[in-house]
Amino acid sequence: MAFIDRLNRAWKTNDSLVCVGLDPDPSRFPESIEEKDEPILEFNKAIIDATHDLVCAYKPQIAHYSAESAESQLEGTIAYIKSTYPEVPVILDAKRGDIGSTAAMYATEVFERYAADAATVNPYLGFDSLQPFLNYKDRGVIVLCRTSNAGAADLQDLPVDGMPLYEKIATLAAQKWNSNGNCLLVVGATWPAQMARIRSIVGDMPLLVPGVGAQGGDVGKLVQAGKTRSGSGLIVSSSRAILYASNGEDFAEAARRETEKLRVQINQYRSAV
Amino acid sequence: MAFIDRLNRAWKTNDSLVCVGLDPDPSRFPESIEEKDEPILEFNKAIIDATHDLVCAYKPQIAHYSAESAESQLEGTIAYIKSTYPEVPVILDAKRGDIGSTAAMYATEVFERYAADAATVNPYLGFDSLQPFLNYKDRGVIVLCRTSNAGAADLQDLPVDGMPLYEKIATLAAQKWNSNGNCLLVVGATWPAQMARIRSIVGDMPLLVPGVGAQGGDVGKLVQAGKTRSGSGLIVSSSRAILYASNGEDFAEAARRETEKLRVQINQYRSAV
Repeated sequence: MAFIDRLNRAWKTNDSLVCVGLDPDPSRFPESIEEKDEPILEFNKAIIDATHDLVCAYKPQIAHYSAESAESQLEGTIAYIKSTYPEVPVILDAKRGDIGSTAAMYATEVFERYAADAATVNPYLGFDSLQPFLNYKDRGVIVLCRTSNAGAADLQDLPVDGMPLYEKIATLAAQKWNSNGNCLLVVGATWPAQMARIRSIVGDMPLLVPGVGAQGGDVGKLVQAGKTRSGSGLIVSSSRAILYASNGEDFAEAARRETEKLRVQINQYRSAV
Repeated sequence: MAFIDRLNRAWKTNDSLVCVGLDPDPSRFPESIEEKDEPILEFNKAIIDATHDLVCAYKPQIAHYSAESAESQLEGTIAYIKSTYPEVPVILDAKRGDIGSTAAMYATEVFERYAADAATVNPYLGFDSLQPFLNYKDRGVIVLCRTSNAGAADLQDLPVDGMPLYEKIATLAAQKWNSNGNCLLVVGATWPAQMARIRSIVGDMPLLVPGVGAQGGDVGKLVQAGKTRSGSGLIVSSSRAILYASNGEDFAEAARRETEKLRVQINQYRSAV
């Protein structure tokens, strides 16, 4: 089943637009986890077990694993989700981008080695750098458009062809890059005005929305700005606010509580106009 | 010693602007290498032993390792260069880019885990995404400006503030991002006209130049367009044309021959005006 269909199913089954970002920080793990042979994998499993029926996707950020030489625990995490909760799609947040022949290697990394259902990519090198990812028709390719960080404006707001660069990216994604129906965009929760512009350009294309929780994005504003006509179309990702809601042995229960809180909070604005 | 100083020393000691790209492709290895326990590492060692006195840097492209689950062989390759030929700096071609807190993790990956002397990064997320890399004052941070691929024009040529985006990046690099003197740019060998423009903007800032060899960049044109007033300032990277000059057991000698050919060819144009 294609990523988009899996996402649609997860949105409906769990009545949730929440994506839990699996960004492990071993310095914040409780003692019982620290002692394990594979602490990152054990931490993730506990989080996943506690939240799988409340989410539409999981999103491991690969830098957290590569900085710790923990590739095998990332493989283990994704394999655990696929074997235990196969209904929940996995987005690998890798923001890869390179010339075509190298992009093909990165596509092998994210879609074959890690078997992710979708991955984030960087558009700076142009269409031929995205094509090796987009050629995987059953996977999602989530292109950076307007990122959640303060410095996003440095390049992404530069005016080109009478519009800011991020709108140009949204236009290219909608008109040129989505011929396989598997192109999505990253739009930070911290920019509701820009999100509304992007939604008006891309129709019902799903948007991956990081930046709620620790980064401070306003849930009501982002959902109202970004939702589709059917009150969906968003993958709202929170990492730190969920993973480290408690640093004690009750971290998984606390994570479930925070996930449910965010799910309910988002759903409150999905039907409201 | 800072990366820039190490680079300057290697340029002079080996009288070379050539960088060998370590992009291993196991399907092209000769039989004697295929049989080894760590074929990628053994292949790289043979290439390095055969070329270390002819180059100014080595540049492993990380996708080639991550697609093969060969992180440990990448670590081994860099460790081998550092212990055996410490005078040759290592550039890790990773094109990382993410929000600040994640960029810090990527900086840990490239500068601590792999201990690279320099790394390539993607500017799309803006200055705060580059800062965690630039804060490593003794390392080089090589920002994508005008890449070598055909699709480079899709975004990089878009007109902003009266100039193409790639010139805006060059301007930002020269005026804002280089306060630690450790910022460089990537400019493809395939675009000599654009390289001349970039050189006029960035003064003596070193440029990493991929795209000669398999990608077809013209050596004479690129050196004349990109060299500094002192006839230097370029890291001209070739990968496939050197690594696979022969697919037989004489691959290392053939690689040396191709490296020397490129070195001489480049040097021919360094003094000519």
